[in-house]
Amino acid sequence: MRIGIDIGGTKTDAVAVDDHGRTVQHFRLATGYGGPAVLRTAAAAISRMCTLIGLPVSTLDSIGLGVPGMVDALNGEVRHAANLGFSRLNLGSELHERFGVHVRVENDVNAAALGAYHFLELSGTMAYVNLGTGMAAGIVSGGRLLRGATGNAGEIGHIPLYPDGGRCPCGQRGCLETVASGSAISKQWATDDPFPARSLFSAATAGDPHAIAVAGRVAEAIAATVRLVVLTVDVDHIVIGGGVSRVGEPLLSRVRDVLDDWAAESAFVASLALAARVRLVPADSNVAALGAALIGGQR
Amino acid sequence: MRIGIDIGGTKTDAVAVDDHGRTVQHFRLATGYGGPAVLRTAAAAISRMCTLIGLPVSTLDSIGLGVPGMVDALNGEVRHAANLGFSRLNLGSELHERFGVHVRVENDVNAAALGAYHFLELSGTMAYVNLGTGMAAGIVSGGRLLRGATGNAGEIGHIPLYPDGGRCPCGQRGCLETVASGSAISKQWATDDPFPARSLFSAATAGDPHAIAVAGRVAEAIAATVRLVVLTVDVDHIVIGGGVSRVGEPLLSRVRDVLDDWAAESAFVASLALAARVRLVPADSNVAALGAALIGGQR
Repeated sequence: MRIGIDIGGTKTDAVAVDDHGRTVQHFRLATGYGGPAVLRTAAAAISRMCTLIGLPVSTLDSIGLGVPGMVDALNGEVRHAANLGFSRLNLGSELHERFGVHVRVENDVNAAALGAYHFLELSGTMAYVNLGTGMAAGIVSGGRLLRGATGNAGEIGHIPLYPDGGRCPCGQRGCLETVASGSAISKQWATDDPFPARSLFSAATAGDPHAIAVAGRVAEAIAATVRLVVLTVDVDHIVIGGGVSRVGEPLLSRVRDVLDDWAAESAFVASLALAARVRLVPADSNVAALGAALIGGQR
Repeated sequence: MRIGIDIGGTKTDAVAVDDHGRTVQHFRLATGYGGPAVLRTAAAAISRMCTLIGLPVSTLDSIGLGVPGMVDALNGEVRHAANLGFSRLNLGSELHERFGVHVRVENDVNAAALGAYHFLELSGTMAYVNLGTGMAAGIVSGGRLLRGATGNAGEIGHIPLYPDGGRCPCGQRGCLETVASGSAISKQWATDDPFPARSLFSAATAGDPHAIAVAGRVAEAIAATVRLVVLTVDVDHIVIGGGVSRVGEPLLSRVRDVLDDWAAESAFVASLALAARVRLVPADSNVAALGAALIGGQR
């Protein structure tokens, strides 16, 4: 049995996954704020899950954690986890000390990528594009995560595609993240709705001209991301995930429309069959926690 | 012993490589124009090399061909080889029929990528960015070529980074290839010099304002390519090759200057150490023919 914990900015999801990759138990906790509180949250999730499934922690095949921050997957250290309120914490060694077993720690987008690949029963290669507060991708090939030479594989949100675009928190200007992420949508579409992306695409569907313009810009940036990833690594599948993906069909159809328009203008682009490679991660599929559980099976 | 043949638009390079990867013999032929003539060129190169090294073709470990066109590496068919004057030719099966041995065929940029990786004795991952008539990259990881799901991995020349840019032969607008390739340089820099890229960078070094502007644009497009490749696949090394790379240090130093400027503006970009990842392929290192010889050792 494997345990996966996805530590988000406000909530933490825990799953237990059996030898067939099936989720047999899951629950959600509130995430504490700051290093010590995040550590307590992770420890509580592990303990509670062990109680629920009736297995001592030492008998588990693996425990994996997905964390939003820069993660050193080798030693389990997490840095720059701004949403969690700490700048440096070695979750891997702290949890090892507490439980006496090895706990794998991975960036949450990489974990979600691995989870999506398995949840959707994909083969070949896949890029999982996470549209959350920020924008990043995880790349999976033959069931394995590609982390890159320095852990920066999939940092596509910081590719500047809009020379005259807005400032990005990364210090550059016009990054893809400044148009297509959840926080970028909030800036471009003023609303009281707790889910601005859905409000935006609903208004666009209803014919609001400003919403149509903003939704078009967002869809085009996502389509540009798809094209860019295919023309670099040529993945079989591109799965859109993260909070923005919960908009669902209204988002996907606009992205596909852009890709179809490009294909109509260029036989080369048409030959890439971009629209057919894109899909959304199923809503509430909890791929990040699932992926965290599966990370223990990775090298 | 392995034989590698790099079939270019005007010349064909042939090498013989021993078990230690050392080039023990090499020569150059003129390339014929059109399918039958290209086939004759390839066959002549193989026969002549066998005579030179004194080995019958049946005793060779492998024969590999690098060809500028869309190559089906599985069956050896080449399509859309505009520079060679044919639209479809199964070089693999034609040569197999003639010599009775299996002949591997690969896209010339992929072959050069593999050759550069071995010539430079690299480890980890590498992108070889070829700046020739067009612009494309080959990606090598742990000594193996990454071709992608549909053979389009590394087609970075057709990522549109300049929305208001010129038309690209691919049907899109403002592709990287429309700024940074050899043919793009010829369009941007009018000269009688047979090597326009060298003329451009010489004039820029001499202080010509127009040359400085064009060279800056070219260097910036190459730097953008480096950033884009690192933020997608995070390769250890980026090797610039192709005709434009023969400009040498004046080109590399301008590309590094752009990367250093970006690093000065963004701590995130600085952390990527982009300038340190880039180098030029050594002039006249014949990496495409070497790589073609090594392709026989690939799956």
